[in-house]
Amino acid sequence: MNRVYNFSAGPSMLPLEVLEKAASELVCYGDSGMSVMEMSHRSPDYEAIINDAEAMLRKLMNIPDNYKVLFLQGGASTQFAAVPLNLIGRTGKADYVVSGQFSGKAFKEAQKMGYDVKCIATTKEDNFDHIPTVTKDMVRPDASYVHVCFNNTIYGTKYSYIPDTGDVPLVADMSSCIISEPVDVSKFGVIYAGAQKNMAPAGLTLVIVREDLLDYADPKMPTMLEWKTMAENGSMYNTPPCYTIYMAKLVYEWILSIGGLEEMQKRNVAKAAVLYNYLDSQSYYIAPVKADSRSMMNVTFVTGDADLDKKFASEAAKAGLKNLKGHRSVGGMRASIYNAMPKEGVEKLVEFMKAFADANPKA
Amino acid sequence: MNRVYNFSAGPSMLPLEVLEKAASELVCYGDSGMSVMEMSHRSPDYEAIINDAEAMLRKLMNIPDNYKVLFLQGGASTQFAAVPLNLIGRTGKADYVVSGQFSGKAFKEAQKMGYDVKCIATTKEDNFDHIPTVTKDMVRPDASYVHVCFNNTIYGTKYSYIPDTGDVPLVADMSSCIISEPVDVSKFGVIYAGAQKNMAPAGLTLVIVREDLLDYADPKMPTMLEWKTMAENGSMYNTPPCYTIYMAKLVYEWILSIGGLEEMQKRNVAKAAVLYNYLDSQSYYIAPVKADSRSMMNVTFVTGDADLDKKFASEAAKAGLKNLKGHRSVGGMRASIYNAMPKEGVEKLVEFMKAFADANPKA
Repeated sequence: MNRVYNFSAGPSMLPLEVLEKAASELVCYGDSGMSVMEMSHRSPDYEAIINDAEAMLRKLMNIPDNYKVLFLQGGASTQFAAVPLNLIGRTGKADYVVSGQFSGKAFKEAQKMGYDVKCIATTKEDNFDHIPTVTKDMVRPDASYVHVCFNNTIYGTKYSYIPDTGDVPLVADMSSCIISEPVDVSKFGVIYAGAQKNMAPAGLTLVIVREDLLDYADPKMPTMLEWKTMAENGSMYNTPPCYTIYMAKLVYEWILSIGGLEEMQKRNVAKAAVLYNYLDSQSYYIAPVKADSRSMMNVTFVTGDADLDKKFASEAAKAGLKNLKGHRSVGGMRASIYNAMPKEGVEKLVEFMKAFADANPKA
Repeated sequence: MNRVYNFSAGPSMLPLEVLEKAASELVCYGDSGMSVMEMSHRSPDYEAIINDAEAMLRKLMNIPDNYKVLFLQGGASTQFAAVPLNLIGRTGKADYVVSGQFSGKAFKEAQKMGYDVKCIATTKEDNFDHIPTVTKDMVRPDASYVHVCFNNTIYGTKYSYIPDTGDVPLVADMSSCIISEPVDVSKFGVIYAGAQKNMAPAGLTLVIVREDLLDYADPKMPTMLEWKTMAENGSMYNTPPCYTIYMAKLVYEWILSIGGLEEMQKRNVAKAAVLYNYLDSQSYYIAPVKADSRSMMNVTFVTGDADLDKKFASEAAKAGLKNLKGHRSVGGMRASIYNAMPKEGVEKLVEFMKAFADANPKA
């Protein structure tokens, strides 16, 4: 097998050990006589899997006991609707920070649903090249929550701080930075994340919600989007995405086995440094993101010449460095270097970048 | 590997060939250098997979061109809300047939959302032991749709006819009978199904919707539940459950390879006959479902003695016949014998039933 380095923004690389373990027990799991894919979600074998997944994630993220962990479906995009449906009943209004495309979508979704939502900060005028500064005085004191996207996959930015929103619960979409480093869960009211970047294949959405926030759901909302219903049923109000949860369990297990989020962070810092240090050392490639807002997971850069950018992505793919083309809305290049990307992948990328710059002098 | 016969109602057995193929290419798909689980949903490799899945399903079910095929998340339970949100805008009211627990849940969900919904027929007073007769004159002519559950997993009943609802679109939850036999799609406005019984692992929901029904969505509804948005984006408004769709593709491929739904039906008829013929030939076990309403997929029976039922399920499991316990709400036994259950499994079950009856005479 000729495995490539896959810089896709999501779905994205999974640890090879995890894939190999999954393959080895796909047809038959332990002595169950069946695949995990075939197990009744109410069977003791499967209950052990989902319970282990939750226990491992709780350990990994040090999730306080007064938070519920939900394994859901529909992606972060479904949570864009679920967040207001579950929370806005607190006060009838909510505040949003728009730091990129997905936080913009979350804001628009709440607007579309007819709620009193306010954009309290945005960096749109700077093409989202940094994270806005959010301070307590910007937040409406009677907002039901403040919504942020903690890592902006498309632009390659990330909060370097946790906004202080006072008594107003902070809700964070962490789809592209979840379990990449330790985070103080107690500072958030809700954390949610699509799994397909750092946790599992696509088709699983994680929601971590403080228990006291479960009582504000719109009584007419779709039951399947109610966090409280899911919490009361251990994420099994209906059939959960069982196999994808099993894959997440294998990923959590892998991170625990290498030393947890402290070690994961160490590796991610070292890995991102390889790329950022190179970017800072030269002038052929431009990294548009301001230094204090750089993402460890998604690194964006451009040559400044759209044709060269295109050539770069195409030649890189031929060299086994796949999916480096930037998001269609911004162009350029983006290297998504999630947990499962080995440091060697980033080193190969930098080698390639050097060779490409040498071989393609700018006019 | 000591593979068992798994009679689970869902998630349930998958064809062994499909599991083996999936296992063999889990780590690396073709010459892509990566797992299907790791592929960007926007990559040509993945687009080929989802396009093939749709094309195969269209061929298999002979889906007319004026129907959209959507690969979604959230299970049939999410569609319980999505159906009214997408359709009730036609006229403001809708009719429901309640033939079991899930059709009851669908009805209650629409009620909860505050809509004018009417239960036009139910067999609740008979403990759902048969399918109600639905005729055109029972339908409100200005209903937006009539909702039915075509196969009732818990009770083991199935419509032996397609209700004539005149000009009112018929919406059918086919979660537990989809692709088990040919069906005339053109008789339905919408068909939807959770995948975890006959199509794939859990985490995928199929919606087949007639194009002219895409224009009635509630403007304030969650975008992710809008069929039109999903149709316009080829099920990729956000990241779809990529790997589960790939598994569905392998299942469709398997059915096509054995001769399509005509052959599948032949096998299912023969398989169910083994069990029903035995049930009809003796008096130890009672099959509560009326003959004209029997499901080919879920066969329910009881001994008439709750302790014996319990013993049956437990001893059967030890004999490699798993998950025969009836749903917690009805008790007794249920053998779910979906597409992937081989005839030998049902034959073994009947052998076991005979031996159990001999060994456990009733008082």
